[in-house]
Amino acid sequence: MYREILGMKDKLTIVKVGGNVINNPEALESFLSDFAALKGKKILVHGGGKRATQLAADLSIEATMINGRRVTDTPTLEIVTMVYAGLLNKNITATLQKYHCNALGLSGADGNSIQAHKRIVKDVDYGFAGDVDGINATNIATFIEGGMTPVFCAITHDTKGQLLNTNADTIASTVAVGMSEKYEVSLIYTFEKNGVLTSVDDDTSVITDIDSPKYAELKAYGIIADGMLPKMENCFDALQKGVSKVIIGNPTVILNKQQLFTTLTL
Amino acid sequence: MYREILGMKDKLTIVKVGGNVINNPEALESFLSDFAALKGKKILVHGGGKRATQLAADLSIEATMINGRRVTDTPTLEIVTMVYAGLLNKNITATLQKYHCNALGLSGADGNSIQAHKRIVKDVDYGFAGDVDGINATNIATFIEGGMTPVFCAITHDTKGQLLNTNADTIASTVAVGMSEKYEVSLIYTFEKNGVLTSVDDDTSVITDIDSPKYAELKAYGIIADGMLPKMENCFDALQKGVSKVIIGNPTVILNKQQLFTTLTL
Repeated sequence: MYREILGMKDKLTIVKVGGNVINNPEALESFLSDFAALKGKKILVHGGGKRATQLAADLSIEATMINGRRVTDTPTLEIVTMVYAGLLNKNITATLQKYHCNALGLSGADGNSIQAHKRIVKDVDYGFAGDVDGINATNIATFIEGGMTPVFCAITHDTKGQLLNTNADTIASTVAVGMSEKYEVSLIYTFEKNGVLTSVDDDTSVITDIDSPKYAELKAYGIIADGMLPKMENCFDALQKGVSKVIIGNPTVILNKQQLFTTLTL
Repeated sequence: MYREILGMKDKLTIVKVGGNVINNPEALESFLSDFAALKGKKILVHGGGKRATQLAADLSIEATMINGRRVTDTPTLEIVTMVYAGLLNKNITATLQKYHCNALGLSGADGNSIQAHKRIVKDVDYGFAGDVDGINATNIATFIEGGMTPVFCAITHDTKGQLLNTNADTIASTVAVGMSEKYEVSLIYTFEKNGVLTSVDDDTSVITDIDSPKYAELKAYGIIADGMLPKMENCFDALQKGVSKVIIGNPTVILNKQQLFTTLTL
């Protein structure tokens, strides 16, 4: 930690991978091989995918929906705990081990890594959905400094014995912000597209660099709109809270350093 | 680690808890509260329980049996990974966190903690059943020295990407033996009975201390026989490989230091 005393922080890369990759065994294997090869200290955060929905269907557990949003009732929480923290997290970990990445699969309960609270009931009770409060950066750093690569699924806990189903994008940004006290953090959101595009249907129209003034401009011209807006707000929020840069794009392109992705900075 | 240089090892307690406790929510909660209160460095190893069998039945997955032994085929491996590494391991971890024990739920793939190989096919292919090869004592010590309490489920990996269903008793003894290089290890096997009994139906007839000569005597007189024999062989094997003592008995009695249990030493 001499580097820290000198004000030089070690670099840490945090990669979030979503359902589109996880649902495709070949794409997942290829992604994990690329991720394992990524040099330096790193963390993986993975989302869920279709398997939980399939398991619920196989068990004839019907999704409870309120205002078009899925409610995490007790049977659903059990299913996501089994699939996300069990099946997906352990298979991802074992695959990374095969590629000589010393992965350590974690939920937020493990080492009290990520604390959350059950979403406050206003009009709707979303059940065991968790809103993240913070992380235990010391324990996560213990894993990293021990040469391991934490692999987080999207299950957290409330520190009072309750597991909670949590948004994986939010976990990634919260871990990135929390770890930026100790590390110079790059946060990579993998995506189906190559990044932020000027023309949605043209995957070569990537805007490679966006800073705060450019972001304001892109919003004003309506180039960033709709579904991209909350994602981008989340990214700039992470930058404001200490993350060095956020990268958005296709995981294969980013991890193979092929340059066609969007980098966000303040 | 100055103590180690002086030849004084820190104490480490490893507790194995089985299906009989895990199947009963009140018993499990009570056990975890007692385990959390246990002072000093510690590790928990938990078995499976009925929930995996129930999930298989709910999914209409029939157990494949050969010579009266269950075969871990692919659907069964998925089920035990979901239930043991997901549902049970994460709920146990979250409950221990509630009781202020900084638990860290692990499979053998996590941090490459426990390596195994798929059981060699002689007459019977038991599928994805794992026979344990060894542990990564350095990584496990990193967790313990970081103030955390590893909680192992009975899933291991072959370091080539394959998860394996593994006997929890064997995991407990292998971890105990491996950690005895760095620690003075006590291994506690929790049990339905109060310990080794002179009279099977009398739970007060506990033989409180058994060393190697006494063990030979008890075998010769047929007091230790049948199902107890392989368990005891396993315990004395662990003692011969460096574990300081093995305790067998009821978890509530042991963890509350009520003295009525069996202690095995060389």
